[in-house]
Amino acid sequence: MQHCDTLIAPRWCVPVEPANVVLTEHAVIVNDGRITDVLPLADAHEKYQPSVTIEKPHHVLIPGFVNTHTHSAMTLMRGLADDMPLEVWLEKGIWPVEKRWVSAEMVRDGTELAIAEMITGGTTCFSDQYFFPEIVAATAVDLQIRAMVGTPIIEFPTAWANDASEYMSKATDLVHDPYIDHPLISTCFAPHSSFALSDKSFIDLRVMADQLDVRIQIHLHETQSEIDTAIKRTGKRPFDRLHELGIVNASLLAVHCVHMSDNEIEVFAKSGVNVAHCPRSNLKLASGIAPVTKYRKQGINVSIGTDGAASSNTLDMLSEMRKTALLAKASASDATAISAAQALRMATLDGAAALGLAAETGSIEPGKWADLSCVDLNRLHSQPVYDPVSQLVYTARADQITDVWIAGRHQLDNGRLMHIDTDNLLERSNEWRDRFAASIG
Amino acid sequence: MQHCDTLIAPRWCVPVEPANVVLTEHAVIVNDGRITDVLPLADAHEKYQPSVTIEKPHHVLIPGFVNTHTHSAMTLMRGLADDMPLEVWLEKGIWPVEKRWVSAEMVRDGTELAIAEMITGGTTCFSDQYFFPEIVAATAVDLQIRAMVGTPIIEFPTAWANDASEYMSKATDLVHDPYIDHPLISTCFAPHSSFALSDKSFIDLRVMADQLDVRIQIHLHETQSEIDTAIKRTGKRPFDRLHELGIVNASLLAVHCVHMSDNEIEVFAKSGVNVAHCPRSNLKLASGIAPVTKYRKQGINVSIGTDGAASSNTLDMLSEMRKTALLAKASASDATAISAAQALRMATLDGAAALGLAAETGSIEPGKWADLSCVDLNRLHSQPVYDPVSQLVYTARADQITDVWIAGRHQLDNGRLMHIDTDNLLERSNEWRDRFAASIG
Repeated sequence: MQHCDTLIAPRWCVPVEPANVVLTEHAVIVNDGRITDVLPLADAHEKYQPSVTIEKPHHVLIPGFVNTHTHSAMTLMRGLADDMPLEVWLEKGIWPVEKRWVSAEMVRDGTELAIAEMITGGTTCFSDQYFFPEIVAATAVDLQIRAMVGTPIIEFPTAWANDASEYMSKATDLVHDPYIDHPLISTCFAPHSSFALSDKSFIDLRVMADQLDVRIQIHLHETQSEIDTAIKRTGKRPFDRLHELGIVNASLLAVHCVHMSDNEIEVFAKSGVNVAHCPRSNLKLASGIAPVTKYRKQGINVSIGTDGAASSNTLDMLSEMRKTALLAKASASDATAISAAQALRMATLDGAAALGLAAETGSIEPGKWADLSCVDLNRLHSQPVYDPVSQLVYTARADQITDVWIAGRHQLDNGRLMHIDTDNLLERSNEWRDRFAASIG
Repeated sequence: MQHCDTLIAPRWCVPVEPANVVLTEHAVIVNDGRITDVLPLADAHEKYQPSVTIEKPHHVLIPGFVNTHTHSAMTLMRGLADDMPLEVWLEKGIWPVEKRWVSAEMVRDGTELAIAEMITGGTTCFSDQYFFPEIVAATAVDLQIRAMVGTPIIEFPTAWANDASEYMSKATDLVHDPYIDHPLISTCFAPHSSFALSDKSFIDLRVMADQLDVRIQIHLHETQSEIDTAIKRTGKRPFDRLHELGIVNASLLAVHCVHMSDNEIEVFAKSGVNVAHCPRSNLKLASGIAPVTKYRKQGINVSIGTDGAASSNTLDMLSEMRKTALLAKASASDATAISAAQALRMATLDGAAALGLAAETGSIEPGKWADLSCVDLNRLHSQPVYDPVSQLVYTARADQITDVWIAGRHQLDNGRLMHIDTDNLLERSNEWRDRFAASIG
């Protein structure tokens, strides 16, 4: 008999890789934070002597979700300014609040609220983009969640930096040093959008990203008006400009991509660009529905992101995964466009790949970190079960996520957050709400 | 002091009518199943001596949802055949199971599962359309939920009836007698679709509906192929044919209406037709997105339905309400197309109006039945709260529905179904699953 830290025995295990497999009567073995074995339960009982055994007789065990795009701290602005066109939302809602209130403290509290919500919703890894990224990273380390921390780069002054060169230098400090080879944190450059940077800044950024071997993420072609405005200002579509500046390559995560021409999609495919699809945010701000089925047919890796809660209201990956499948069917006029199993893969392994983390997380395979979620299907609205993957994707709600492990650490245990004081967190959130609400009159 | 049955004191009360009102520090008074007063809490404490006082300090009290289109018994087929085109879904999944298994027992168990799910999700009234409608009605009475029971009318033999005249005669028996002036049950004719009936049957139906003053509901223009096939067979679009046959009028509930020309929309508006919008089902079966904003601009009453769980997987009205708002924004390219408050009205009062029940339910107004739902907003993903209606529509999940009253009867109490044995219900559901799964190999 071999010792192991944890033996998890769910009713169903969906490893995602290999694809289209549902294991029953199987156990997942965890040691030192990593998955070390996936084997028939009978064999596991013969082979292992676990410190902890966890039986989940009504549950499906899946890889933790990878949320490839959010602005965690903005969770404090959830519902601050709903049902408004994008420009009004920014000008009357978000910007006045950000101008007055963005600070290290606000980013810490907002990021903590986001992380608490993400863990209860089965997310074990997120990609962030906001001011004070060093605080985002520190908070993720404190709360022990996997994160890709994007360092914002723009050219106007904020509480975090004053001009392009200060953004770039602070960004470089963060990506260069403290988190190299960190077990949980990776970093990348996050220029806000094509209109936020001059050609010179993009060229500097590209050189720096190449030198440091760091990925880039950027909002791209989110709305038609973004494209129209860019053409007026620069004579070019944002995509064309970025392509000429050498930004479009396999280390790019392009966020949104709602409006792309067939020709641009072809270039994307050839370049190996990854897409972060944020369906709910795109609906809510009336941006449109991204042509995800076209992307996938061309072989482009499409991951799923919730965007920030200020636009999309929640960080619920189950719901975004479901929307991804449903919207793809309607917009491609094809009920088979994205299946339940494909949607689950997009929300997990394809997300890990989009962040360059596919060797570390995103599937239940020996050698990867034990980033796992357990979902209870024994609820009225998920019964009866013909196919657990179908019930997971088309019926499950975040309250059915009962257990979450990140790098083997049991973060959600029978629905209870183990390492976050939620009462205190909600008190702080309400203090920020009062301040923010006062700022927008 | 006056006696009253129940005093409910929520943190927020959204009566829906009057529109755009959020009451705080208010009480709702219930007597003999009806709302008898809505008044400031301080006044309520002076005026009433309640048998039961219910305080809900983190909750928003809303009218119960009105689900204007479902096929309750099909809940047993939830996830039986997902990710398939409509024709394959019917021919390989649904029809073989229905042919072999539809019976009074199956309809009772399936309807009970549906009702249990609907009550836990805050739905207090539903409009049904399935075989054995007398069993649907009896089950709704047993479990004490408000229902509009549609009697199916088609022309081919099933376990319930053999030909058009038998469907019609059984339907007429049900709508004519047992439920006239019933406090919970109403009935209507539910011809399946334009292609399911001959001209003669539609003419007979119209005469009967006029004589008995009974409403009609029908699936209409759900898919483009429905329209194309009708044109091939009859030379007419289904809408035109029904219009000529006198079916298009203010007592019609037209379900789906995904594909309608501007001209048809105008006729709808003039005729006072009500629409049942089923966004999730339309996405899932790749039918498309109904032009709801156009309908509303023309003054057409648009209600919300979940459709049956065999296509849309759940009977979750919170989720359908959210999708209604989100999809309207994207498809109208207007973030203000349907606001949170408007979506809530569509899911409640506009639903009641679509069923001819606006005088009885759908808003928190004295004189109406006490059909109420209470939603807990004190969850991480619904916090902080700037606007309770916004948080309700854009963040709340069905597990936040803690309390439901139907005609004043406390059906869900702190998340617990009071009058349904769910263990036994799930056992029966699983027995049906085993039978169904065997039929489709």
